[in-house]
Amino acid sequence: MDIAIPFEHGGNIYKAVRQKNNTRFIDYSANINPLGLASNVRAAIVSSIEDIIHYPDPDAHDLKIALSKFYQIDAAGLTLGNGAVELLYVLCHVIKPQRALVFAPSFSEYERAARACGANVEYGYLDESKDYTINLAEIIPQLKKIDIVFIGNPNNPTGTLTTNRQLEPFIAAAKQENCLVVIDESFIDFLPEDQHYSCRQFVHHYSNLIILHSLTKFYAIPGLRLGFTLSSPYIANLLHAAKDPWNVNTLAQIAGVAALSSLDYQAKTKEVVQLAKERFFADLCAIKNIKCYQPTVNFILLNLEKAGMTAAELKYLLFNKGILIRDCSNYPGLSPYDIRLAVKLPEQNSIILAALKELLKDGKSS
Amino acid sequence: MDIAIPFEHGGNIYKAVRQKNNTRFIDYSANINPLGLASNVRAAIVSSIEDIIHYPDPDAHDLKIALSKFYQIDAAGLTLGNGAVELLYVLCHVIKPQRALVFAPSFSEYERAARACGANVEYGYLDESKDYTINLAEIIPQLKKIDIVFIGNPNNPTGTLTTNRQLEPFIAAAKQENCLVVIDESFIDFLPEDQHYSCRQFVHHYSNLIILHSLTKFYAIPGLRLGFTLSSPYIANLLHAAKDPWNVNTLAQIAGVAALSSLDYQAKTKEVVQLAKERFFADLCAIKNIKCYQPTVNFILLNLEKAGMTAAELKYLLFNKGILIRDCSNYPGLSPYDIRLAVKLPEQNSIILAALKELLKDGKSS
Repeated sequence: MDIAIPFEHGGNIYKAVRQKNNTRFIDYSANINPLGLASNVRAAIVSSIEDIIHYPDPDAHDLKIALSKFYQIDAAGLTLGNGAVELLYVLCHVIKPQRALVFAPSFSEYERAARACGANVEYGYLDESKDYTINLAEIIPQLKKIDIVFIGNPNNPTGTLTTNRQLEPFIAAAKQENCLVVIDESFIDFLPEDQHYSCRQFVHHYSNLIILHSLTKFYAIPGLRLGFTLSSPYIANLLHAAKDPWNVNTLAQIAGVAALSSLDYQAKTKEVVQLAKERFFADLCAIKNIKCYQPTVNFILLNLEKAGMTAAELKYLLFNKGILIRDCSNYPGLSPYDIRLAVKLPEQNSIILAALKELLKDGKSS
Repeated sequence: MDIAIPFEHGGNIYKAVRQKNNTRFIDYSANINPLGLASNVRAAIVSSIEDIIHYPDPDAHDLKIALSKFYQIDAAGLTLGNGAVELLYVLCHVIKPQRALVFAPSFSEYERAARACGANVEYGYLDESKDYTINLAEIIPQLKKIDIVFIGNPNNPTGTLTTNRQLEPFIAAAKQENCLVVIDESFIDFLPEDQHYSCRQFVHHYSNLIILHSLTKFYAIPGLRLGFTLSSPYIANLLHAAKDPWNVNTLAQIAGVAALSSLDYQAKTKEVVQLAKERFFADLCAIKNIKCYQPTVNFILLNLEKAGMTAAELKYLLFNKGILIRDCSNYPGLSPYDIRLAVKLPEQNSIILAALKELLKDGKSS
């Protein structure tokens, strides 16, 4: 097993605090809802703390019903995870794919989970000159030698959105080749509406389709862990048989039920994040020598090559100002000059905007 | 993959509440510290709720240091789990054992995790007439065809304790045969002292030894999930590479650190549970037609054959009185007449004692 690949993620505030003692960081490295916890989610957790003296409900009965109603999906296809990422590992452990295809760049846990289960991983490189659009037709001929393919929609860290109209023929072609398609919709809740993007509706028709979904980003509960897959009941049964029965802790289950009922928070999040994203994007584009890729949800990919500053250098300089960013140079398919920023509230975004203006003012081509 | 085996555990209060609406159950089916949450654990969780908006520390830095100090073990051998059971699955997924040996009866997740990873499972039947003592010497000749063996110490549900002096030659013999030995010490903290029982000290000498340890029973946090393995750094690295990096949620990490510092709670638990166990055992033995096996920690195995009542029947009758017990008839190696009761506080134990006296008064041999 190859364990030498330097997978490192954003959002590691604990490491940052250890490195720079007692500093309060503002974290643009993890793509979490800037509104923080919904008040009813916080209240549900607080009032349920005494319940942790019991095992979690292994059937996650209430949360499955809530998810089924909220997304109008069949509960028999649901598998709940200790975060979406856990389910990537359980899935790969169960399927034991020999060859996996991941797009480059994309979320690195697709590759790590596949490799952890012994798969050879092939990259489908996304074309920077085409704003990292995913060209599905180009990939179809490769599917006959692939067992599983992972697609982020929207794709992290590029923000690339693919319509479900484009995705359906790809899923159908993969089915012909006995290739599983995992579509990661972990950021899709941030879209104003997802009807032209989500592939949840296709699960009934394509037994090779697995939707992966996180609840931790939109509801700001990454520390509690909560995600799910939607698949055929057959695959859901395989996943249930291969995982710890108590994998979703009690507070996460309770928080999830509360979160799905927080309609005002959901509406406010979509509105606030879409507005903040547009404004942050415009302000970033206005900084000399930064290349900004069009965002779709709550994160923005940037390239600093024209500024003559690597992502590692900028990360270091911002770290010393108490600001965390995601250095994207360890993403296959990206360069040493790529960074990703979370969209936060406008007043927070102004902090990093000021720092970037100061640090990047002497770009090499300016 | 065989998914038809009816694994069912105790502690499923949610299912019970759904079946019997709004009833408050007293739960003897899960072996949880009857003192409930330590006050400093509760306080640590309450004061950390806002931290769940960040990802958990993937290094579990503070908790690994606390565990290392508390148990005087090498942090490089630690792998933290979303409960101990998660690590059984990760381990089996990584090792891919072809043949596993489990003692019968023992905790069913050993078998389920091994089967989930494609292993054939052999049973080492424990002899009821010898109070389910584990005869290690008898098993050694079988090890040459076994890849992994699981030993509960104390063993659940029998309570059987094996000394580390007895275990060491077994571990050494297994090493000769390239057989991994998983010793599950999830209940060992309930012993007044564990120096003659724990095999933690052997991990440095035997690269085939893996200690599994749960923090959820002793500290009454099963709903939060927390456990660990102690192994060679080599195996710890394999486990880390094969699991989700954020598997241990933030509140569990914080609760774990607080729990390990709760020295008064630890001392009180040991004292209260040992006294309650002795008294509960004596009171159970005094009930006509119940056979009681000598307990060692916070649960007691009983056989009702002389009373002419099956475990399923008694479970049903007690359920209607708002009392949950563990029907042990689905444990390989046990009979339809075996049940397990958690040791609770004396005033709680008197509730089930009264119910048992009433329900079992007409035993067939009375």
